[in-house]
Amino acid sequence: MDQTAFMIGFTIMSLASLAIYATGSKATPSQHHTLLHAAVPFIAATAYLAMAFGIGTLVKLDGSATYVARYIDWTFTTPILLASLVLLAFHERGKTGEVGGYLTAIIVLDVLMIETGLISSLVEAPIVKWMWYLWSCAAFLGVLYLLWVPLRALAMQRGDALGSAYGKNVTFLTVIWFLYPIVFLIGPEGLKIINDPASVWAILVMDVVAKVVYAFYAANNLESALRDHERRA
Amino acid sequence: MDQTAFMIGFTIMSLASLAIYATGSKATPSQHHTLLHAAVPFIAATAYLAMAFGIGTLVKLDGSATYVARYIDWTFTTPILLASLVLLAFHERGKTGEVGGYLTAIIVLDVLMIETGLISSLVEAPIVKWMWYLWSCAAFLGVLYLLWVPLRALAMQRGDALGSAYGKNVTFLTVIWFLYPIVFLIGPEGLKIINDPASVWAILVMDVVAKVVYAFYAANNLESALRDHERRA
Amino acid sequence: MDQTAFMIGFTIMSLASLAIYATGSKATPSQHHTLLHAAVPFIAATAYLAMAFGIGTLVKLDGSATYVARYIDWTFTTPILLASLVLLAFHERGKTGEVGGYLTAIIVLDVLMIETGLISSLVEAPIVKWMWYLWSCAAFLGVLYLLWVPLRALAMQRGDALGSAYGKNVTFLTVIWFLYPIVFLIGPEGLKIINDPASVWAILVMDVVAKVVYAFYAANNLESALRDHERRA
Repeated sequence: MDQTAFMIGFTIMSLASLAIYATGSKATPSQHHTLLHAAVPFIAATAYLAMAFGIGTLVKLDGSATYVARYIDWTFTTPILLASLVLLAFHERGKTGEVGGYLTAIIVLDVLMIETGLISSLVEAPIVKWMWYLWSCAAFLGVLYLLWVPLRALAMQRGDALGSAYGKNVTFLTVIWFLYPIVFLIGPEGLKIINDPASVWAILVMDVVAKVVYAFYAANNLESALRDHERRA
Repeated sequence: MDQTAFMIGFTIMSLASLAIYATGSKATPSQHHTLLHAAVPFIAATAYLAMAFGIGTLVKLDGSATYVARYIDWTFTTPILLASLVLLAFHERGKTGEVGGYLTAIIVLDVLMIETGLISSLVEAPIVKWMWYLWSCAAFLGVLYLLWVPLRALAMQRGDALGSAYGKNVTFLTVIWFLYPIVFLIGPEGLKIINDPASVWAILVMDVVAKVVYAFYAANNLESALRDHERRA
Repeated sequence: MDQTAFMIGFTIMSLASLAIYATGSKATPSQHHTLLHAAVPFIAATAYLAMAFGIGTLVKLDGSATYVARYIDWTFTTPILLASLVLLAFHERGKTGEVGGYLTAIIVLDVLMIETGLISSLVEAPIVKWMWYLWSCAAFLGVLYLLWVPLRALAMQRGDALGSAYGKNVTFLTVIWFLYPIVFLIGPEGLKIINDPASVWAILVMDVVAKVVYAFYAANNLESALRDHERRA
């Protein structure tokens, strides 16, 4: 049953990667958002293919599985999604150093959120597991702080149109990303309230929303903001 | 016998790193190409040293070896070689975001090409092995598409001199990179038509061409393009 | 006893990350240095937490421990510290490619320095251990060369104030970084002249100096240089 979910994930993600590239803007100043959003599901497709063949899947002593391929996927896809938001906040401004400073800080917090989540999943002793879970949540709060406070202020300075596109995108991403620690908490890696197939299917739906639906939504918000921005400029 | 090849590889690569740095341009706007191309064989030298001492070398059940050090080397050296091409296509233009978008997309495809090649090498079941081999080839096609279509168009817009330098470099890299999946295919990780020493020596020669000969060739094309470019500007 | 050191390390590093962010400049053109320096102890805090729970700690046949969490920490924190110096050398100048070329070259050397140090720590055979130690030192020399020769020249071109701030920061970093290979050499991973707790406490002090004290010192030098720079400009 997991196998089916994984093959569906592979199929959707690989087709979505092509579709996002094919339908996305290929002109300055938004083509790089197209490239970033098309790269994300290509990574996810590879991870789903690995999971379909059990590559990187660890079964722990308590019988629960940790899909390491997922965590590797997230280690690279979530920074790319955040990079797209950071670049939107700095749209066509921002020197290499300034953009690089925000990218580094938010990606450090984000990757630590993922890796400490992986440690939490692998550890069996409850106290240690929940300590790492909390540290992962602390890193998540750091990501949200940077997205909602300094980066949002930067986006707002770029005018109403871009500020509003940034606001919509960051809201969508925040809502969908909040579901991941909840599914982890109630799933087999956490309190075991829902079982492995339920968690696999839930994450499949969430991944499609966070990587594919979001890509089209974000591109749409950006393109209408750019039209507005140019009209006013 | 492999040991000899690995020590030769270490020697050539470490001397080449110094030679590329020593002879390369240290002035704007091409010094960063010198730095990138000098970094590549330094990584390769370290990987050859590791292989010479069996570090990261896995022998599988069928007796064939996977040199993980090679895949780690390629994971970092191939993105640097691609970065040099992307920066040439955008020569002195391109905002942080635009360059970053292309770099991210091409490096994602490239690294997935390498890692799925590593999985293909490690997996024993033929169907699974060839499925990962095909997925690796798909990623390679994505890399070639970006190099030959959008990035080539960008390079051409920068004028005849730079466009032609980009064209020469990308042709050289494409030809030499095509040999790698072929050697993998016929070598001990694939159809076992050629044996391990043959594949080790073949890859040594290819590595020297792709990392050292290419570095001098690319630097030469860039410098003459820059002279032409300035003369006309 | 190590446990105490690790929990102290975790506490200092996590509080320092908040303190560096809270007290640091949040305005252009120095805010990105604040973000980079705040990210560093957050990574270190996570590594100390891992070491406190024995995660990533390998005990070798000779009874000595290799704390892999440390090497992972250094793999990401030292490039960020170097990035801050590279960005200071190019302060508000430098196109994406130029800055990226220096960043790539210095980070490649730096990361190879760390990873070959890890190999040296894990290997038991003395000749192989010291060969990797020497290769790690060679990479360190490469890092120092880039910091003290081309990057220092670039910083000097940016005027006395910035050149002097760069000089102070690079001197501090060079001195403290020199202690690490010495502690490795005399510690349990090397000649075993000092024991594991001595080395753990020594590295704790060095980490606090290199990541926390340095962050405040570097920020202070940068801010006074910027005041000078503006006054003269």
